[in-house]
Amino acid sequence: MTILTRADSAHVATLTLNAPDRLNALSTEMLSALHRTLDAIAEDATVRVVILRGAGRAFCAGHDLNELRDLRAQPDRGAAGLKTLFDRCAAVMARIQSLPQPVIAQVQGLATAAGCQLVATCDLAVAGDEARFGVNGVNIGLFCSTPMVALTRNIGTKMAFEMLTTGRFLTAEEAQAQGVVNRVVHTDHLDRDTRALAEQIAGKLSAAVRIGKRAFYAQNQMTTTEAYAYTGAVMVENMALDATAEGIDAFLAKRKPDWPS
Amino acid sequence: MTILTRADSAHVATLTLNAPDRLNALSTEMLSALHRTLDAIAEDATVRVVILRGAGRAFCAGHDLNELRDLRAQPDRGAAGLKTLFDRCAAVMARIQSLPQPVIAQVQGLATAAGCQLVATCDLAVAGDEARFGVNGVNIGLFCSTPMVALTRNIGTKMAFEMLTTGRFLTAEEAQAQGVVNRVVHTDHLDRDTRALAEQIAGKLSAAVRIGKRAFYAQNQMTTTEAYAYTGAVMVENMALDATAEGIDAFLAKRKPDWPS
Amino acid sequence: MTILTRADSAHVATLTLNAPDRLNALSTEMLSALHRTLDAIAEDATVRVVILRGAGRAFCAGHDLNELRDLRAQPDRGAAGLKTLFDRCAAVMARIQSLPQPVIAQVQGLATAAGCQLVATCDLAVAGDEARFGVNGVNIGLFCSTPMVALTRNIGTKMAFEMLTTGRFLTAEEAQAQGVVNRVVHTDHLDRDTRALAEQIAGKLSAAVRIGKRAFYAQNQMTTTEAYAYTGAVMVENMALDATAEGIDAFLAKRKPDWPS
Repeated sequence: MTILTRADSAHVATLTLNAPDRLNALSTEMLSALHRTLDAIAEDATVRVVILRGAGRAFCAGHDLNELRDLRAQPDRGAAGLKTLFDRCAAVMARIQSLPQPVIAQVQGLATAAGCQLVATCDLAVAGDEARFGVNGVNIGLFCSTPMVALTRNIGTKMAFEMLTTGRFLTAEEAQAQGVVNRVVHTDHLDRDTRALAEQIAGKLSAAVRIGKRAFYAQNQMTTTEAYAYTGAVMVENMALDATAEGIDAFLAKRKPDWPS
Repeated sequence: MTILTRADSAHVATLTLNAPDRLNALSTEMLSALHRTLDAIAEDATVRVVILRGAGRAFCAGHDLNELRDLRAQPDRGAAGLKTLFDRCAAVMARIQSLPQPVIAQVQGLATAAGCQLVATCDLAVAGDEARFGVNGVNIGLFCSTPMVALTRNIGTKMAFEMLTTGRFLTAEEAQAQGVVNRVVHTDHLDRDTRALAEQIAGKLSAAVRIGKRAFYAQNQMTTTEAYAYTGAVMVENMALDATAEGIDAFLAKRKPDWPS
Repeated sequence: MTILTRADSAHVATLTLNAPDRLNALSTEMLSALHRTLDAIAEDATVRVVILRGAGRAFCAGHDLNELRDLRAQPDRGAAGLKTLFDRCAAVMARIQSLPQPVIAQVQGLATAAGCQLVATCDLAVAGDEARFGVNGVNIGLFCSTPMVALTRNIGTKMAFEMLTTGRFLTAEEAQAQGVVNRVVHTDHLDRDTRALAEQIAGKLSAAVRIGKRAFYAQNQMTTTEAYAYTGAVMVENMALDATAEGIDAFLAKRKPDWPS
């Protein structure tokens, strides 16, 4: 059994975290598989959108506690091994946002600790109505400091602090109200509705979406003045595409654009 | 017919984008008129608040696609002309926020692409209940990279990404829930209710509002420590105003302040 | 009568602003007492959580206007004295966030101007259902520039600008929806429910909460890349705690951790 499966169909690559008996924990093995697969997708022009889902009853319950314990048991108390693990995890998060294609988290069941971080990091998220979100490491004495980075870039300060210090879980509806997920759907329709969102985006001009996603995360970290100087140049780059010229011509002529399907 | 009209009354300047047949597109001509008029208002001590509205059925549908197409048809694929246009647009957005007076967007109908950017950029916004907001350039292959700068400084990450990559529109109520507009009112009362908000602010001490608006956008881009050092000095500057001393005296004496009307 | 009282019980220190006849104004005397008491708590390992509340019918109505007036009456129009006061106030705000222990604002009645800033600055806030929040200095000609720093780091741009320029108050429910407070409870239960939240957090591993709170405010001001490099090291530091190793062992063995009570 492979720890991560990939299935492509109609320009959508679906990745499934496949360690359901460990609640799809982000072990070194899982993180490596994810990073390798995302690297391959980055080079694959046929893929326009990625769906990231989990097998079994949880989306992802965070790091593998057995692995954390083993690394902690080293003479250096894990100073080397744990650092490598957290660096690897951060690299996967960065790889999701640096991926040319949008990534949609499809969340059923639990998304906790680094699993909640994964949802917060994805560009978009669709949740089943029974999904639950938490950064509850504090309950075992390990504050969710790395998940906090992604979480606080999605939701408000007061709620983030509460979740981190009390271990409080959000329901799917609360997660949507707070901005962690885009949509909540009946769990029975989670596959179908996530797929529909993916296909909607896959139907856009892929080159424009790629340009836009890269700009989204770049400008987010700039001052407003810097961001306008940068995105102005991005607009010119986008306009230079022949397909964009065709898109504008088609709109003005009230016809459908002749784009590669 | 002038492309931008200005009407002043009781310390409130109302600017109307007046190209309804082109959905008040932000053409070079419109942007120049806006910039020039805002520069004049900046120097006009009689104006305390600005209302920005659109004539016809739309607030503003963004850039003028015919103009974009013509610039793109140049030998350099628009590298020079488009850059000038986007720089000009960013300069208008910056001018709104650097204007001493608060600017209220009064939104009826469509506010799309750079039109949505305009709403996000204004200090305040009141929407009619049939207003719709979108950054839907992706539908013609032109990702709304510059509108994204203003939008992501108003709303959450996940919703911004969804609007940008799917072209999804927000209703007026959704726009309020997401923080793009302050109030939603019945369209029949849009003029009246926007005016009431403008007059409420025009009734405050103008010098204090000017000091505050400048500080609002300055401190927003600083670390917390820098922001406190800066705003502490702003408070001292504000306290040095004789009218503020009178405001405090009046409050302590439970009387109305004797301020210039 | 002391201007600030402290009562400790079961690892929770409750501080009460005790100048009810002046609506617990943040006078120089009050700020000094607060800073001194917080400094003492920072060194007190028995305290795990702090509750900050006000005596009487208001939580805190901001600066002491009589003191502002007296400082303003100096020959330098308060340039020296007011600067010292605002610096002192900013130092208390910074001290709350640099305190190792989480601080919960327990808000009854009014929280206005620097009083609203105090709520926004605390890590968590519980409000009685009749509480009201405002940054209404504009009404006396003194724009709430320093409160704005804390407020704009809690709530959206458009709402912050509206509150600052119109003097609009938020009800407790609106404050919760905007992210200024975590919970709204019946005023009759405000003591009990705030206490319950404090005890919930006091029941966590204190060393982990301290590590997490420090990291929360540090990473908030960094780029995502910097934040991950930093919090990765924080996770390694947290894992080095023997109590955290015990927490993980206990979780894996499905037993309660043997932690200091």
